[in-house]
Amino acid sequence: MSDLRDDLRTEAEALDAADELAAKRKEFVLDETVYLDGNSLGALPANVPGRLAEVMTHEWGKLRIRSWDESGWWTAPERIGDRIAPLVGAAPGQIVVGDSTSVNVFKALVAAVRIARDAEGTGGPGGTGSSDNPSGGRDEIVVDATTFPTDGYIAESAARLTGCRLVPVAPGDVPGVLGDRTAAVLLNHADYRTGRLHDLPGLTAAIHAAGALAVWDLCHTAGALPVGLDEHGVDLAVGCTYKYLNGGPGAPAYIYVRESLQSRFDSPLPGWNSHAEPFGMRPEFEAADGALRGRVGTPDILSMLALEASLDAWEGVSVDTVRAKSLALTDFFLRCVEAYVPAGRVESLTPAAHAERGSQVALRCDDAGDVMRRLVEQGVVGDFRAPDVLRFGFTPLYVSFGDAERAARVLARTLA
Amino acid sequence: MSDLRDDLRTEAEALDAADELAAKRKEFVLDETVYLDGNSLGALPANVPGRLAEVMTHEWGKLRIRSWDESGWWTAPERIGDRIAPLVGAAPGQIVVGDSTSVNVFKALVAAVRIARDAEGTGGPGGTGSSDNPSGGRDEIVVDATTFPTDGYIAESAARLTGCRLVPVAPGDVPGVLGDRTAAVLLNHADYRTGRLHDLPGLTAAIHAAGALAVWDLCHTAGALPVGLDEHGVDLAVGCTYKYLNGGPGAPAYIYVRESLQSRFDSPLPGWNSHAEPFGMRPEFEAADGALRGRVGTPDILSMLALEASLDAWEGVSVDTVRAKSLALTDFFLRCVEAYVPAGRVESLTPAAHAERGSQVALRCDDAGDVMRRLVEQGVVGDFRAPDVLRFGFTPLYVSFGDAERAARVLARTLA
Repeated sequence: MSDLRDDLRTEAEALDAADELAAKRKEFVLDETVYLDGNSLGALPANVPGRLAEVMTHEWGKLRIRSWDESGWWTAPERIGDRIAPLVGAAPGQIVVGDSTSVNVFKALVAAVRIARDAEGTGGPGGTGSSDNPSGGRDEIVVDATTFPTDGYIAESAARLTGCRLVPVAPGDVPGVLGDRTAAVLLNHADYRTGRLHDLPGLTAAIHAAGALAVWDLCHTAGALPVGLDEHGVDLAVGCTYKYLNGGPGAPAYIYVRESLQSRFDSPLPGWNSHAEPFGMRPEFEAADGALRGRVGTPDILSMLALEASLDAWEGVSVDTVRAKSLALTDFFLRCVEAYVPAGRVESLTPAAHAERGSQVALRCDDAGDVMRRLVEQGVVGDFRAPDVLRFGFTPLYVSFGDAERAARVLARTLA
Repeated sequence: MSDLRDDLRTEAEALDAADELAAKRKEFVLDETVYLDGNSLGALPANVPGRLAEVMTHEWGKLRIRSWDESGWWTAPERIGDRIAPLVGAAPGQIVVGDSTSVNVFKALVAAVRIARDAEGTGGPGGTGSSDNPSGGRDEIVVDATTFPTDGYIAESAARLTGCRLVPVAPGDVPGVLGDRTAAVLLNHADYRTGRLHDLPGLTAAIHAAGALAVWDLCHTAGALPVGLDEHGVDLAVGCTYKYLNGGPGAPAYIYVRESLQSRFDSPLPGWNSHAEPFGMRPEFEAADGALRGRVGTPDILSMLALEASLDAWEGVSVDTVRAKSLALTDFFLRCVEAYVPAGRVESLTPAAHAERGSQVALRCDDAGDVMRRLVEQGVVGDFRAPDVLRFGFTPLYVSFGDAERAARVLARTLA
């Protein structure tokens, strides 16, 4: 065992020495902790405090109201959206940042149902004042039954308000329930519990073949692996920015609206920021052109500009490189766990096949809550998902192979 | 004229010397500018940068994910809500902070329609899956036609999604359109353009007499005058925190749900933060007790904790004192304008009667856009609302009588 440990430690050192992202680690505030919870809250990028101090003291403190124009506050949602775009395979002009993921799921789903109905001619003109509850036509929203729960709760509300029926199924069963009643399908790109990656290209194609719209939640994949929104023809997508994008606690989420759908994107939250002429203060709503339709109210500037600064870490980074390191990290961690942990003590819920794996490893054991508590006490931070899952997230920008080996070692000692 | 100026300057000095809020000015970052745009973006409270630096470097940077518990991040929405509560006349446990005003208007209106219908027995059980478009019953949402436009746009969307008809009327005409078809009424406490204060107690009573729910938008009054939500039996209220509450650009808004309605508050945005057991990750939605039902997604911590720090400025401050100073300031400014500006050059749109006045003065003149641009160049910052309104907001915590006199003087010179 001690020989094996020496071998794996040596291997970790060699992998870290060869890691082309290794230098990125210095751009984050890290300490002796092995931080494997970046899939819940990304670590602090070192440049954020300085940038936000400038926003507070200069932009808010001195320029005050003038900063809406002079400091570019007003256009931050679309400007930051365009910086996230290449990380999820989107051309510019299709993403705006703002609101929470839950609120964006709501916008996306209601808008998707309206577009699907307009295409069928069953939804009326789709303009202001038309009913959202036509009889017949596309009246089903299919939702990933294994998804992070908020998506299901919001989907239920969207269904209720648009007169649809909610159809919860496991992602693999989606093709079997699609039909001419399906308006929209909401799927999570990766299962938050197991880390399983779902087949975005294949499922999107199946949804389109049924004449429905595909809405993807990218919370657990954006910043960890290539998504390819444009390439795979995804209709709408949402995601948070506080996991692999390191935007800060509760940082604003984003919504992607495919360019060809923007003119039909009919938001259920048409706030003044999505108006064609926001400062015209006109009583009638007229939607802005483009992705701006996804905006709602006044953008949350402090959180938003912290997010913008955090995205500097992506300069010069290829998502393919990130993906390669992510898979190498999770492979290596699983090997270390297998080598160190007594057989049968934990069960990996994370798929062995690369094509089915996100950037986290989920291990099941009956005493997971207690085990995670003790891991955290020993400086290895993952998280616990009830009732029995240990989650370890691997953020390729700052997690090292040495971290992975140490985490497995401490885990083995804790489980012993 | 010069004698008059001397008199008014002397009076300003005396008023400032007697101002019991004068010491509060030191708690804000101000300079030689006369800042009369706190009704759009409040000035920076001096303690905010230090507090947010601590949040970033210690809470996010060191504790990371542990801060959700250990730094009180998770409970920030209700904790900060309870700090806003006394400023708007609410007992604790009825306000949560989060999302934008527009999003909160949406929650409040859809929930109000559902409650009104449940009370009538026309809306079904109101539980998950019931239709929001019953025939007959209460099917009208009355909205202030002079309100800040976003409220109208969102009300239109809430009406469309609940099968209601939107009835836009001037606030004074509300009583005349109320009836047994009225489900909810959305009113702005003060007109954003003219500064006119609407009769919250009287209109709320009239709305209740018709069996409908009263939803008030407090953006332009919270922090400037007593609102008395509990006292006047308001059902639901929303407001922003970046005007008289000085919470920062785009700081999170809030929603008030009267205690007696909380068990019937059925949110159209039931995100995981409003679940009875958020970390249970249960597929079925079960609403939390109390005001927590107004929460949606993960709270935007950086902006939220900046807001929390900004509220320190209210320690030891009575809203009645603030109101008295606000009226004295706007009275004094109007007197200075009358004394300095040639008769007929501007027209005050702000009511002379105290009971009808908020905390801003609106002056109409044909060249208002150009005039405001030149005022800003001379260090007097108000704002322009198309097509012809100069707005001057008076934040009693940091605006002095000397500021008011100087602003009128520079205005007169600019208009000459």
